[in-house]
Parts: sequence; structure tokens; C-alpha cells
Amino acid sequence: MVETAIIDGKAFAEGLRARLKGEVAAYTAAHGTPPGLAVVLVGSDPASSVYVRNKAKQTVEVGMASFEHLLPESAREDEVLALLADLNADPAVNGILVQLPLPAHIDTQKVLAAIDPTKDVDGFHVVNAGRLAVGLDALVPCTPLGCVMLLKDRLGSLAGLKAVVVGRSNIVGKPIAQLLLREDCTVTIAHSRTKDLPAECRQADILIAAVGRPEMIRGDWIKPGASVIDVGINRVSGADGKSRLVGDVAFAEAQGIAGAITPVPGGVGPMTIACLLQNTLTAATRQAEG
Amino acid sequence: MVETAIIDGKAFAEGLRARLKGEVAAYTAAHGTPPGLAVVLVGSDPASSVYVRNKAKQTVEVGMASFEHLLPESAREDEVLALLADLNADPAVNGILVQLPLPAHIDTQKVLAAIDPTKDVDGFHVVNAGRLAVGLDALVPCTPLGCVMLLKDRLGSLAGLKAVVVGRSNIVGKPIAQLLLREDCTVTIAHSRTKDLPAECRQADILIAAVGRPEMIRGDWIKPGASVIDVGINRVSGADGKSRLVGDVAFAEAQGIAGAITPVPGGVGPMTIACLLQNTLTAATRQAEG
Ligand SMILES: NC(=O)c1ccc[n+]([C@@H]2O[C@H](COP(=O)([O-])OP(=O)(O)OC[C@H]3O[C@@H](n4cnc5c(N)ncnc54)[C@H](OP(=O)(O)O)[C@@H]3O)[C@@H](O)[C@H]2O)c1
Ligand SMILES: NC(=O)c1ccc[n+]([C@@H]2O[C@H](COP(=O)([O-])OP(=O)(O)OC[C@H]3O[C@@H](n4cnc5c(N)ncnc54)[C@H](OP(=O)(O)O)[C@@H]3O)[C@@H](O)[C@H]2O)c1
Repeated sequence: MVETAIIDGKAFAEGLRARLKGEVAAYTAAHGTPPGLAVVLVGSDPASSVYVRNKAKQTVEVGMASFEHLLPESAREDEVLALLADLNADPAVNGILVQLPLPAHIDTQKVLAAIDPTKDVDGFHVVNAGRLAVGLDALVPCTPLGCVMLLKDRLGSLAGLKAVVVGRSNIVGKPIAQLLLREDCTVTIAHSRTKDLPAECRQADILIAAVGRPEMIRGDWIKPGASVIDVGINRVSGADGKSRLVGDVAFAEAQGIAGAITPVPGGVGPMTIACLLQNTLTAATRQAEG
Repeated sequence: MVETAIIDGKAFAEGLRARLKGEVAAYTAAHGTPPGLAVVLVGSDPASSVYVRNKAKQTVEVGMASFEHLLPESAREDEVLALLADLNADPAVNGILVQLPLPAHIDTQKVLAAIDPTKDVDGFHVVNAGRLAVGLDALVPCTPLGCVMLLKDRLGSLAGLKAVVVGRSNIVGKPIAQLLLREDCTVTIAHSRTKDLPAECRQADILIAAVGRPEMIRGDWIKPGASVIDVGINRVSGADGKSRLVGDVAFAEAQGIAGAITPVPGGVGPMTIACLLQNTLTAATRQAEG
């Protein structure tokens, strides 16, 4: 039995934002204007609206400028593209984020491709995926960036550790695998077609769950002492009929086995917006350097 | 003891070129002009010159047009970039390949980035790396493409198989890993920092060696029945003082253990140019479709 450490993503994200606040102040002093983040929201989906509001709030709190562009559900694709062209050209805007999902009449790939890659703070542009893949400076998707920050904070160097990433989506699994490879982990990518998933997981010094299936990964899939990062956010209804959030890992079962684990909520989740702010500052700094 | 099949890349490449010849004829009949491949060689390195000549010969043999641009060693970077701009604009040129390595006074990354991604038949442009990573249509590096063709020819569906890729270069290891993931393999990427490489290799239904170390992978690292693709090309001197080529896998030791293995030479090597021709036809076809 090991004592399983709980990785406090909320506290880490707070610390990151505090550090960013200082760096943003230095940037602003040096350049005369703060870094600016533009968020584009089409329609009024309640969850997206809350998320956009949180982003704006945290953006301003660290001293950056926030520009919100709220378009009606009926906005045409060419209107969104025209807005993005303006934002690409606007020197006050260093980062651009289009809140997903977009309404069905708008082609998401086309919209994402229209963002200047140097301002693409979500890291979803093909050019940023390519730069990450070949090892050039890239803007990296926020959640993956947050996961790797938490791991490095806990473990220091990740070199030589065996990492198993369960899930291979473009926004979570694949970029996490790329980042861990860059950190010199031996990386296994598993997914729904993987044959003996428990056996793959049991080899992991670092186990990343990014599946979207409540508590799918059981305690006895975890190598004793492993660091477990649970990216999953799943809403389930408890015995009392109330709904609650759980991750992709059976958190209670992991106690006494994992060396450390992120809780859900309060683990990876809070890192995402903090990393978005980090990406905006990174983008602004690189743009200033030309 | 299993009977180890020898994967005959030379014969497969011949068959591929024969098939391409027919497809090129159909393309030419439909469009009035054949697909065209432009190769740029700077300097007169003997190995590169031989390679460029072979490419031109095979290009013409399948019925495509070959344009060779041979610049002196002293060519300036801006001259190379100007040539690429011309080739990008030339409708007779569907594929562009810059033979590497370039002389030291020329920035390779800058040159590769100047090739129109839709004509980038080597698949080295960041946009193609990104498109491969996110699962869009991409021009894929030739050697990786050839490896996966050989595997699919032998195994049919690769789904659910465990693949271990030893090596993570941008031109071989990483794109092979992406392709195998796209084929629904569970993929492990190993490299010089991997801790227990023999143990990783022993799990592989598909073992890819792309290291560049003569016969580093021993017979007892191979899972009985595994399909082994040896990408390595290493020149060593034998006991008789004569030099010969060997792969990254101890070929003799693999006999009776591997289910199948590519020899060196005659395995992966011959696939590379055939896949270059395939990429040129793919590029031409996509360009014609707009
Ligand atoms: N801020 C945050 O914390 C944050 C951000 C983004 C996402 N998330 C959460 O992370 C989770 C994953 O998100 P996503 O966008 O990556 O999801 P996704 O696009 O649905 O991808 C899920 C991945 O899991 C794999 N998978 C599905 N069932 C599996 C099974 N039974 N065994 C093994 N693998 C299986 C899928 O494999 P195939 O490819 O074979 O289908 C796929 O690669 C979700 O719960 C999401 O809510 C959290
Ligand atoms: N047409 C063809 O058949 C063709 C085409 C291209 C290349 N090749 C051959 O394929 C081989 C690889 O080429 P490349 O361009 O990918 O080479 P590369 O860029 O030198 O990459 C070699 C890779 O092997 C890894 N490695 C080195 N020593 C290792 C060790 N002891 N254990 C585990 N991994 C180790 C390296 O790890 P790190 O990343 O940790 O350094 C690196 O990722 C060469 O022999 C080359 O000649 C053949």
C-alpha cells in the first residue's frame, strides 16, 4: 500500500496564474500594451457561454485584454471568416479562440484553418499540429499542456518513463502523446481497438486517461506507484438521484495503488484556462520577437 | 520454430510501379498531360546524384514527366527559393522534391517550408506533418508509406495489433507511428532513452526498426511470429574486409522466430522511390480535383 498523493490542479493553476500575472505586467511594461485574447462565440449554448465568461474573467485578472465577439446562432460562415480576418490583422489581438462546438451550418475545419497559426492559442490549427509533431515551437492544445505541466511539477524529468495514453483524439490524446515523446518518455497510444487495455495500462509509470467513459480504468489496471492523470469529465447520476462528475479512472480504487492521481473535478480541469492564458502570453511574446 | 517469410520489397515495388504505370496512363488520357515530378539537387554529392538519377529514370518509366534542376554547390539560398516559387507556380509540375542534404550555407527548414504543401511529395512540410497528425488527407513521407504498404499486403487489417516503432525521427519513426495509429494499431514509440528496449520489442506483433545501428535488435527481442520491418541501412565491413549493407535487425537471428522480415537490402529500400511516384500521382490527382 502506498500513500496516494492527490494532484491539486486547482492550486497549481492558481500558482500558474499568479506567475503569469507578473510576466504579463513585465510584457505590458516592455511593449506599452498588454497581450490581448479574442474569443469568438457563435450562438448562446449555456455551457459555452459560461466557459467563455470564465475565460474572459481570468484573462482580465492576469492583466491581459479580453475581446469577446458574440455572434447570433444565425451567423453565416462568411461572417465568421470575415471576423477572423479582422482579428488576424489586429495588432491588439495576440490570441484568437473560437469556442466549439459551432452551429452545424458552419464548417469547423474551415473556420479553424482561417485563424493565423501564430495567434491560434487553442493549438488546433494544422500548422501547429505539424510543428508539434516535428519538434518546432508550436502553440500546443491547452489541456495536454496542463497535463504535462502537472507531471513535470511532480516528477521533474520524465525521461525514460513509460507513458500510456488511453485515447487518441486530436485535442487531447494525440497531442499529449507528442508532448510526452518530446519529454523522452517511451509512449504507448491506446484506444478503442486496443486488445488488452488493462495489460497495457499496468506497464505505465505515467497513465493518461482521456476516453470519456466514467471510471472505466480500474484500480488493478494501475501499476503501483504510477502517476495517473485523469482527463475525463463524465456526468453520472448517483444512487441519490443527484448528478455528479467523475473521471475516466475509478478514483477510490486507485487509492493505495497509484503514486499520485488527479481528482475530478479539481485536477486537470482547472489547468485548461490557465494554459490558455499561458499560450496567449507565449503567442504575444513570439509575435513581438517577430 | 516458425518458417520466417522474407518480405520481398523489390518485387512488391515492381508490382506497385506496374500498377502506377496503368494509373498514370489513365490520368494522362483524362488530363492531356502526364503528372510531372521536379527534383532539385544542389551540388554534386555522388550518392545524391545517383539517387536523383534513379528517381528520374523510374519517373519516366511509369509514364510521368521528370524535371531535373541541378544547381551548383555554390547556389545561393535565394536562388533555390526563387526556383521553388517557379515550380510551385508551374502547372506541369505536380510534385517537387528537394534532395537532402543541402549545402551548409542553405537553411533546410526554410527551403522545405517554401514548397507548396500540395506538391510536397516527400511529405516533409509542416502542413503535411500536421495533416497526417490530425487525420486529414496528407502527402506522407515515402519510406513510412512503403513500410505500411508491405505490412498491409502481408497482414491485411492491422487493427488491434501491437506495433512497436524503434526510432522517432521526423522522416521515418514518427510518421510510421502515425500511420500505424491510423490503421488502428496500439502503437509504442521507443528511442534512445527507452529503458528496457528488449522488453518493449518482445511485445510487438509489428516491430519497426528505424534506428541506424547495425543489427542492434537481436533475435530474442522478437516475439515469435511477429512481422519485422527493418528500415535501417548500415554499411559495415565484414571479416573479409569488404563492406556490405546490414539492417538494424540481426537478420540471421530472426530466422525461425519472426513470422516475416524485410531483408536489407531488398526490403524497405526499393519501396521508397515507388512510393515517391505514388505520391506524385496522388498529388496530381488531388490538384486536378481542386
Ligand atoms: N479541460 C478538460 O479537462 C478536458 C478537455 C477536453 C476533454 N476533456 C474530457 O476528456 C475526455 C476525452 O475527450 P476527447 O475530446 O479526447 O474525447 P473523444 O474525441 O471522444 O476521444 C475519446 C478517445 O477514447 C477512446 N476510447 C473510447 N472508448 C474506449 C474504450 N472502451 N477503450 C479504450 N479507448 C476508448 C477513443 O478511441 P477511438 O479513437 O478508437 O474511437 C478515442 O480515441 C472526455 O471525458 C472529455 O470530457 C476534458
Ligand atoms: N529508404 C530507406 O529504406 C530509408 C530511408 C530513410 C532512412 N533509412 C535508414 O533508417 C535508419 C533510421 O533513419 P533516420 O533518418 O530515422 O535516423 P535518425 O534521424 O538518426 O533517427 C534514429 C532514431 O533512432 C533512435 N536511436 C538511436 N540509438 C538508439 C538506441 N540505442 N536504442 C533505441 N533507439 C535508438 C534515436 O533516438 P533519439 O531520438 O532518442 O536520439 C532516433 O529517434 C537509418 O539506418 C537510415 O539509413 C532508410
